[in-house]
Amino acid sequence: MSTNRLEAFSDGVLAVAITLLVLDIHVPEPGRGGQSLADNLAHAWPNYAAYVTSFVTIGIIWINHHAMIGRLRKADHTILVLNLFLLLSIAILPFATSLMARYLQQPHDQHLAAAVYGGAFLVMSVIFSVMQRHILFDKADLLVEGLDEQRRRTILRWGITGLIPYAVATALAAVSAYVTLAICAALALFYALPVASGNDA
Amino acid sequence: MSTNRLEAFSDGVLAVAITLLVLDIHVPEPGRGGQSLADNLAHAWPNYAAYVTSFVTIGIIWINHHAMIGRLRKADHTILVLNLFLLLSIAILPFATSLMARYLQQPHDQHLAAAVYGGAFLVMSVIFSVMQRHILFDKADLLVEGLDEQRRRTILRWGITGLIPYAVATALAAVSAYVTLAICAALALFYALPVASGNDA
Amino acid sequence: MSTNRLEAFSDGVLAVAITLLVLDIHVPEPGRGGQSLADNLAHAWPNYAAYVTSFVTIGIIWINHHAMIGRLRKADHTILVLNLFLLLSIAILPFATSLMARYLQQPHDQHLAAAVYGGAFLVMSVIFSVMQRHILFDKADLLVEGLDEQRRRTILRWGITGLIPYAVATALAAVSAYVTLAICAALALFYALPVASGNDA
Amino acid sequence: MSTNRLEAFSDGVLAVAITLLVLDIHVPEPGRGGQSLADNLAHAWPNYAAYVTSFVTIGIIWINHHAMIGRLRKADHTILVLNLFLLLSIAILPFATSLMARYLQQPHDQHLAAAVYGGAFLVMSVIFSVMQRHILFDKADLLVEGLDEQRRRTILRWGITGLIPYAVATALAAVSAYVTLAICAALALFYALPVASGNDA
Repeated sequence: MSTNRLEAFSDGVLAVAITLLVLDIHVPEPGRGGQSLADNLAHAWPNYAAYVTSFVTIGIIWINHHAMIGRLRKADHTILVLNLFLLLSIAILPFATSLMARYLQQPHDQHLAAAVYGGAFLVMSVIFSVMQRHILFDKADLLVEGLDEQRRRTILRWGITGLIPYAVATALAAVSAYVTLAICAALALFYALPVASGNDA
Repeated sequence: MSTNRLEAFSDGVLAVAITLLVLDIHVPEPGRGGQSLADNLAHAWPNYAAYVTSFVTIGIIWINHHAMIGRLRKADHTILVLNLFLLLSIAILPFATSLMARYLQQPHDQHLAAAVYGGAFLVMSVIFSVMQRHILFDKADLLVEGLDEQRRRTILRWGITGLIPYAVATALAAVSAYVTLAICAALALFYALPVASGNDA
Repeated sequence: MSTNRLEAFSDGVLAVAITLLVLDIHVPEPGRGGQSLADNLAHAWPNYAAYVTSFVTIGIIWINHHAMIGRLRKADHTILVLNLFLLLSIAILPFATSLMARYLQQPHDQHLAAAVYGGAFLVMSVIFSVMQRHILFDKADLLVEGLDEQRRRTILRWGITGLIPYAVATALAAVSAYVTLAICAALALFYALPVASGNDA
Repeated sequence: MSTNRLEAFSDGVLAVAITLLVLDIHVPEPGRGGQSLADNLAHAWPNYAAYVTSFVTIGIIWINHHAMIGRLRKADHTILVLNLFLLLSIAILPFATSLMARYLQQPHDQHLAAAVYGGAFLVMSVIFSVMQRHILFDKADLLVEGLDEQRRRTILRWGITGLIPYAVATALAAVSAYVTLAICAALALFYALPVASGNDA
C-alpha cells in the first residue's frame, strides 16, 4: 500500500483539526455585562495564547509527520492503525485547547484543565515516538533508503527527548496552569526555530 | 475517469467527519451545577467512549475504502454514486455519535439512541458491501489486476460477515444501550488488530 | 497553471461543505418539552429530507465539476476566479439547507425560506453553466482534447437545460415550500440514476 | 522536501477556513422578536457582506499562494514555518469576519471590530510578503527556474504595494467600520478582475 493516500488522509485530519481551533475564539455578545468590546477581547487572552500554542504545535507535528512518512516506501496495516491513533490524539486537541482557555483563570479547576492540556500533548508525542520506533526498527524493510542504524537511533532519540518537556509541563500543572501553558508555548516556538529543524531532518 | 479525484474527495469527507466528532465533546461551563471540573469531566465518559469508538470505526472504514478503490483502474457513474451514498452514511456518524453519548444514561430513550447508533454503522457496512460487490462482480473489467473469482468471493464474504455483529449490536439496543456501545467498541478494536488485516488485504 | 491544485482546493471546499451539513441535524435535549426521543426525532424530518437532498446535490455537482475540469489541460486567472464564485455558491448551501429545514413547517415564512433554498441551487447551476460555457467556447485552446463544436454544444445544452427545473422549484416556493423541496429532492435522485450520467460524459 | 505535501496541507487549511465562514451566517429563530423572516434576513446584511469579502479574499490568497509555491522546487524548514504562520493568520479570519459582522452596526465598538478585521488582512498580507521575499531572495537556489532579479523584484513589489490599501483600510476604522469593509470588499473584487492577474503571474 502506497503512502500517498495515508499522507492525504493525515493532511486532511490535521488541516481540519488545526482550523477548527478557531471555533473556540468566540465573538462576545454586543453589550454583554456592560463591558466594551475592548475589555471583552482583552479578557479573552487565554484563548489567544492557547490558540497560537496549539496551532503551532499541530503545525510542527505535521512537519515531523511529513518527515516520518517520507522515509517510508509503503505502509502496512500496523502503520495505518498506529497512524489512526496518532490522528485521534491530534483530533482531540481542539477540545483540550478549549478546556485550557476556559479554565486557565479558575482558581481550583485550572490544575486539572492544564493537566489535560499538557497530557494531550504528551500522549500525542508518546504515540508519535512509538510509531517512529516501529517504522525505523520493526519495519526497516519498508524504508525508502537504507538509513544506517546510527542515524535511525539519532532520529528516535530526538523524538523521545522531546517527551520530557511535555511530561514536565503536565506535572507542573499541579503548581500552576500558567506554567504549563508557558512551557507548551515555549516548546512550540522553539521547534519553529531554524535550529530545531534537526528534529525532522 | 481516474480514481485519483474519487479518492481525494472521499479522503476529504472522511477526514472532516472524523475530526468533527470532537465538536461533541463539550467543555463544561465553569462552576455549572456547583460541581468541580473533575466531576463534570468524569460525568461525560459516554462522550469519550462514543468518540473513540466512532473515530476508530471511521478510520477502519477509511483503510477498507482505500483497499477497495485501490483495486480499481478507473471509476464510472454508478461507482461514483454508490460512493456518494457511502459518504452520506459516514457523514451522518457525528450526529449518531452525539445522540448515543447524550442518551446513553437516559432510562427510556437510550434504546432508540443505541438503535440509531448501531443502525448507522449497519447501514454504512451494508452500502460498503453493496459497493464492494458491484466493483468486484459487475465491473470486473475496471479492476486493476485480474483477481480470480475465488479471491473476489473471499473479499466479499469478509465484508458481508462483518455485517452480522453490527446487526446484533443494533438488535441488542432493545436490551441495553451499553451492550450496543460495547459491541461497537469491541469491533473497532478488533479490526484495528493486526490479525484483522486480512479484511483489507 | 496546472489543474491539479485547482482540483485539490475545490475537492477540499466541497468535502467540507458536504460534511458540515450534518451540523444542522441537532441532537434534541433529553426530556425537552416532555416529549420522547422518538417524537423529537420524528419531528425533525425536514432536517433529514433537506440534508439528503443537499448532500446528494453537492455530490452530483462534484461529479460534474470533476468532468468539467477534467477537460482542461491547464487553468488561467479567469477560470480560477469563476471557480471561486462557484465554490462560494456551494459553500453557502449549509446555510440555505438549515434555513429550509427550520422554516419548512412555518405557515408564513416557509415561502421565503424555500425561495432561498431553490434560489441557492439555481445560482449555483447558473455559475456552473457560465463557467462551462467559458471553458468550452472562450478557452478552447486550454482543452485537453479537440472536442468538436457539436459535442461542446451538447454538453453546454445539458447544463443549461438543468437550470429549468431549479428555476421552476424556486418559482413554486410561492405556492408551497414542500413543492420546492420535493422538486429539488427528485432532481438529486434523478441525476444519481445511471441514465443521467450523460450529463457528465 | 518536496512541495506536494506543503501544498496539500495548505489547500486543506484554506479550504476548511473558507468553508467555515458560513457558520457565521445564522438561521434566525422562527418568530424571534415578532419579526418576519424577511426582516431578519435583511437585518443580517453585514454578515453577507463580510462573508463574501472574506471568502473572495481567501480565494485570492489561495491563487497567490499557489503561484508562490509553484516557483519552488522544494521547501526547507524555514519555508514550512513561515507557511505555518501564514496559515495561522488565515485560519483566524472566520473569527475576524464574525466580529466585523456582529459589530458593524454598533455605534462605539464598530471601530475596534473594523480595526481587527482590516488588521487581520494586513497581518496576513505582511506575512505573505515576508515569505515571498524569503523565497525569492534568500532561497533562490530552491526556485524552479532561474527567474532574473528584475522579475523577482517586480513580483515582490506587487505584493508590497498590495499592503498599502489594507493599511489604509485598517487606519480608517477610526473613522467608520463601513469604510473599512468597503475598501476590503473593493480590494477583493479588484483582485478577482482579469486585469489584476499580473499579481500572480
